[in-house]
Amino acid sequence: MDRERFSKQLDFLREIDKVKSIFRNTVLLDKSRRENDAEHSWHMAVCAMLFQEYANDKNLDMCKVLKMIMLHDVIEIYSGDTFAYDTAGRATQAEREKAAADKLFALLPPDQGKEFRALWDEFEEYSTPESKYARLVDTFMPIYHNYITQGLMWQKMGVTKSKVLERNKHIKAGSEVIWNYVCEIVDDAVAKGYLKDG
Amino acid sequence: MDRERFSKQLDFLREIDKVKSIFRNTVLLDKSRRENDAEHSWHMAVCAMLFQEYANDKNLDMCKVLKMIMLHDVIEIYSGDTFAYDTAGRATQAEREKAAADKLFALLPPDQGKEFRALWDEFEEYSTPESKYARLVDTFMPIYHNYITQGLMWQKMGVTKSKVLERNKHIKAGSEVIWNYVCEIVDDAVAKGYLKDG
Repeated sequence: MDRERFSKQLDFLREIDKVKSIFRNTVLLDKSRRENDAEHSWHMAVCAMLFQEYANDKNLDMCKVLKMIMLHDVIEIYSGDTFAYDTAGRATQAEREKAAADKLFALLPPDQGKEFRALWDEFEEYSTPESKYARLVDTFMPIYHNYITQGLMWQKMGVTKSKVLERNKHIKAGSEVIWNYVCEIVDDAVAKGYLKDG
Repeated sequence: MDRERFSKQLDFLREIDKVKSIFRNTVLLDKSRRENDAEHSWHMAVCAMLFQEYANDKNLDMCKVLKMIMLHDVIEIYSGDTFAYDTAGRATQAEREKAAADKLFALLPPDQGKEFRALWDEFEEYSTPESKYARLVDTFMPIYHNYITQGLMWQKMGVTKSKVLERNKHIKAGSEVIWNYVCEIVDDAVAKGYLKDG
């Protein structure tokens, strides 16, 4: 065993423990508290396993999907979580997250840093079937959480139906089936008063 | 889309949100609070990605490893977390967890319930290279957390060196390299007063 290499791997493993303290604008389904990025990544991975049959692409590399999901939010220990509908925050998000990725993946041995960074970049670049599928699961989860919690965070953050549909229309590129379901629950959320129309 | 099938998948997705409220006898590295099963599963998956090169088996199916990790603790929403050194709890653990698995995986469409249950069973049965590797990561994490937090939970729960070594000796079957490192930090933990000798 190369001790210097192993030591870098342990540095990374320790540093990302902070992911458990990055809280999102989504609550647990029992509404008891906000969820954090580690919990979200785990839940998202199980959702990706559950919904694979609905992916537009029938030949997904699921190992890559799961690895991307595990790493997609780790950089938020430096850049913070940016709420999906925060226009000002989103204007600087890409730059802040790139700087965070530069810093975080540099903790690893160079070959492994490159491998992990490539997975993170692939998710961000959104050009492969795996990244499109992973991204749809990433955005489906908070929509579903909001629907089940009667629009708790949608209302708190002043989100409207048109914002939800515009911000999440990319879901169709990952799964037409899930996109149709999202349109259906968004309409139902408006009808039930969970989400503002307009 | 088969709505009855999809509805069962959503039932499962909602039910497992409770994993985020199953707290373990391990603390976050900043010692601020105990971690929960969802956070642990996520951290464990990244550790499995990091340490793959140290696995005894050089041809692991990593997709299966990651899926097993995602599901290995979900049944604790019904059976609760059993502390590694809780002898009384461990005597009934297998039976309690099997009943919990019967209940939880029955929420899914039968084919998917069978697939997920098979992954959970494989982890429990501990006979394949993938389950041996996943299990080593599962038990490495709390040892490492204890080491970094100066033995906080070891001391609180009255754990001794011989108990740690006896309970975790299986690590060697997944990775000799990681087992050697565990022996080293256990000795160091005793030397530093984090862990009782004997």
